[in-house]
Amino acid sequence: MAIVDLNCDMGESFGTYQKGRDEEILEHITSANVACGFHAGDFTTMRKTTEMAMEKGVGIGAHPGLPDLMGFGRRNIDITPQEAYELVVYQIGALNGFVKAEGGSLQHVKPHGALYNMAAKRQDLSEAIAEAVYKVDPELVLFGLAGSELVKAGKQAGLRTASEVFSDRTYQEDGTLTSRKEANALITNYEEAVSQVIRMVKEQKVHTVQGKDIDVQADTICIHGDGENALDFAKYINQALKESDIETIKVRDVLK
Amino acid sequence: MAIVDLNCDMGESFGTYQKGRDEEILEHITSANVACGFHAGDFTTMRKTTEMAMEKGVGIGAHPGLPDLMGFGRRNIDITPQEAYELVVYQIGALNGFVKAEGGSLQHVKPHGALYNMAAKRQDLSEAIAEAVYKVDPELVLFGLAGSELVKAGKQAGLRTASEVFSDRTYQEDGTLTSRKEANALITNYEEAVSQVIRMVKEQKVHTVQGKDIDVQADTICIHGDGENALDFAKYINQALKESDIETIKVRDVLK
Amino acid sequence: MAIVDLNCDMGESFGTYQKGRDEEILEHITSANVACGFHAGDFTTMRKTTEMAMEKGVGIGAHPGLPDLMGFGRRNIDITPQEAYELVVYQIGALNGFVKAEGGSLQHVKPHGALYNMAAKRQDLSEAIAEAVYKVDPELVLFGLAGSELVKAGKQAGLRTASEVFSDRTYQEDGTLTSRKEANALITNYEEAVSQVIRMVKEQKVHTVQGKDIDVQADTICIHGDGENALDFAKYINQALKESDIETIKVRDVLK
Amino acid sequence: MAIVDLNCDMGESFGTYQKGRDEEILEHITSANVACGFHAGDFTTMRKTTEMAMEKGVGIGAHPGLPDLMGFGRRNIDITPQEAYELVVYQIGALNGFVKAEGGSLQHVKPHGALYNMAAKRQDLSEAIAEAVYKVDPELVLFGLAGSELVKAGKQAGLRTASEVFSDRTYQEDGTLTSRKEANALITNYEEAVSQVIRMVKEQKVHTVQGKDIDVQADTICIHGDGENALDFAKYINQALKESDIETIKVRDVLK
Repeated sequence: MAIVDLNCDMGESFGTYQKGRDEEILEHITSANVACGFHAGDFTTMRKTTEMAMEKGVGIGAHPGLPDLMGFGRRNIDITPQEAYELVVYQIGALNGFVKAEGGSLQHVKPHGALYNMAAKRQDLSEAIAEAVYKVDPELVLFGLAGSELVKAGKQAGLRTASEVFSDRTYQEDGTLTSRKEANALITNYEEAVSQVIRMVKEQKVHTVQGKDIDVQADTICIHGDGENALDFAKYINQALKESDIETIKVRDVLK
Repeated sequence: MAIVDLNCDMGESFGTYQKGRDEEILEHITSANVACGFHAGDFTTMRKTTEMAMEKGVGIGAHPGLPDLMGFGRRNIDITPQEAYELVVYQIGALNGFVKAEGGSLQHVKPHGALYNMAAKRQDLSEAIAEAVYKVDPELVLFGLAGSELVKAGKQAGLRTASEVFSDRTYQEDGTLTSRKEANALITNYEEAVSQVIRMVKEQKVHTVQGKDIDVQADTICIHGDGENALDFAKYINQALKESDIETIKVRDVLK
Repeated sequence: MAIVDLNCDMGESFGTYQKGRDEEILEHITSANVACGFHAGDFTTMRKTTEMAMEKGVGIGAHPGLPDLMGFGRRNIDITPQEAYELVVYQIGALNGFVKAEGGSLQHVKPHGALYNMAAKRQDLSEAIAEAVYKVDPELVLFGLAGSELVKAGKQAGLRTASEVFSDRTYQEDGTLTSRKEANALITNYEEAVSQVIRMVKEQKVHTVQGKDIDVQADTICIHGDGENALDFAKYINQALKESDIETIKVRDVLK
Repeated sequence: MAIVDLNCDMGESFGTYQKGRDEEILEHITSANVACGFHAGDFTTMRKTTEMAMEKGVGIGAHPGLPDLMGFGRRNIDITPQEAYELVVYQIGALNGFVKAEGGSLQHVKPHGALYNMAAKRQDLSEAIAEAVYKVDPELVLFGLAGSELVKAGKQAGLRTASEVFSDRTYQEDGTLTSRKEANALITNYEEAVSQVIRMVKEQKVHTVQGKDIDVQADTICIHGDGENALDFAKYINQALKESDIETIKVRDVLK
């Protein structure tokens, strides 16, 4: 039976601002990426999210982002690798406070938004992030876009890495995601989205927009927690994976 | 030979704003309270301060404050005990990220400014803070004003606590510090300041403004790191303690 | 025919966080209190809200709050009157930038949340706020709880003031609102809520929880823009006022 | 007699963090660029700086920056032109609140740091900034690097523009400043710095690092307010300009 991790961003509420249906989504995923207060989340939300994730047995990861609450961490900020190192250490540490307080242990780290995207392409930022993760705790799993600089940097730093794939995004021949500025960037049809993922997990292949198949490593599937259909899709993909004899388990166990 | 810890706030710079002469002060203290980004400090400053403190063998503590950079954490904010718990967990965790990254271990926690003062008097806040510290790591030492609610709450939570005394503040008959609004709140004369401290360490007594002596526990002495004469006074008190056969050592060793 | 202003808080979204159904609510009110980026709102939201309000002919007011996005400006912060003055000037100015850019003119100022509540009771804060409003523009209308220190301070500063009443809150014999901590603080029944308001507008009387009628001035009625039934209630109260021969018009015209 | 404006950034302190010797520098300049709370400054500092500048008869300008206090507005953030428009409107408005409260009138707008540099090169951002300034108040003078996109956009929007030159920076043949990454970017010798400026004012020429003279418009000279020698240099350049029969007057009068 094939295995894969199913991850989703969590804990993105802030103060009185609610975002996402975390409690329900948690029923359908195996790893949660918890916002750490820079691009989203706050100390109250982090505590609650940690408690909920532990209760449901979901693997907990830090989801560090750029310090840009208004831009939700999606705007590039011209930070140095040194700053990338520091803000990742800070945010992992902060979330780890809550995880330790509840007697749990942190499973993984997945950079958010612009930090994730910049790291996918830039070796210097990726190495800084990988070093941050390794130095805080070498047992942490580092998430990165399959085939990206971040995954390479993680491996070189001595970390276990999880190659991440997206169900709802199309792929280019060079293994990158099609830019959201392109018309064919998104896969909105549930069936197509899930077919792509199942093939990535079972055959390690994905069909690109150029028409060619390429190799892809799929340790963990990212699903999105906001949007109206988030919960619906979470249920759908779970059912579909089961029917295709793919078991979803925490990334720590996928990588064993 | 009597022993005591000498602590000072550190890492209070923010971005391009410099505060304090940390590197020099670190030569003269045994425990450093490192700001964690809420009332002062940032991820860059925290990394640098942690590195410097470890290099000099000074005990490192988290110095969590209220989320109020503009007010430097000195303005009361009407937070709930639950929020106090959460913001302490967050800030201890964040600093611990840097300490772990450098292979060190966190020694203590000292709330800052308005949080320290509110906790000194309020049982509910003190219990929340003590619980936060204990749940993140029961080996941490909790600092509080000698005789305060915070020290009581720490003991009850099962933590080792350090009773803190001030060299440059006068005391009231009930053991509290004279309010800064009073004319006689501060002791600016070096000799008087140091005499008061030496007596507190050696005899566990302090002379109050009402004229009566009271008992006081002095595990750690607080000195201030900003102000023009900070470095001067740090040197002066060190010399004076030595001459009075009082050894300054890290609070962890004081409490053994 | 009796007249009254109907005001509602607006522009409380922040970045990707949405709050309130502003566009729809604007159809049913005569004055909008626009958040200025301290307790809620941001520069994008302020621009959009200003444009919408002007398009719909609704009076625009600044809604300055304490600098506490996470607490939504509802937590007391121990600011000085000087700081109250400054943060009100800053926020009125900021909103006025958008109003001027669209060729409009600012109508009023209503402090938000904890600032409103602290000002209702404290003369020093009220005087500072009134001075801020007056010095920026003496033509601005200052909103305050009917009978409060803020209304008094506004009058004394030479401002036109709008005495504000609440449809969904009960009143104490001394003219204050019943604390939300009390069971009988809220009026959830639409009919009761509207009856109370209509009587306040027509007879300048309100029935208190102690059973006695007291005098009350009602220049403007506050309705709440968040909550599930906000839009519903906005429609309901509009209809009810019309049926009672009460016309809703901008506060500037109410005070003429 | 030749005339020129002498401008300096002001009001860059934040909370308890002090920066610059504003009060003294104000004696030696004709226009002050006041930080507006995004990259530096806060509402208290803005009030104080406005009061000081008015007392000394110095022209007051808004100095809007990117929302990045930790980076002091020097890190590029990937904002849209729409956001540039909005954050400039917001910050001009906020400062204008204090200027109006003191009975003064705002003279100019000079974008700060990364916003200034991005605008120098990008037409879309420059147009957005120029539109923001014009819509808030068409009488405002827009500062931009001499020969930059920002000056062009300002003129096209119908604004008076002030072409700014730097005494302590070398110039490239294409009119841009030599990048700070180059060894020869800075002119540290007072005499050379002042000679370059005097020639720019009197002959509208500057000698470039490539050896060729180019034309340059010099309506206003920027001097830096931080750094140890800021005050010294301010005095020196004032004396030197006077001796060369160049009068320093507010930019509003330079452009008449």
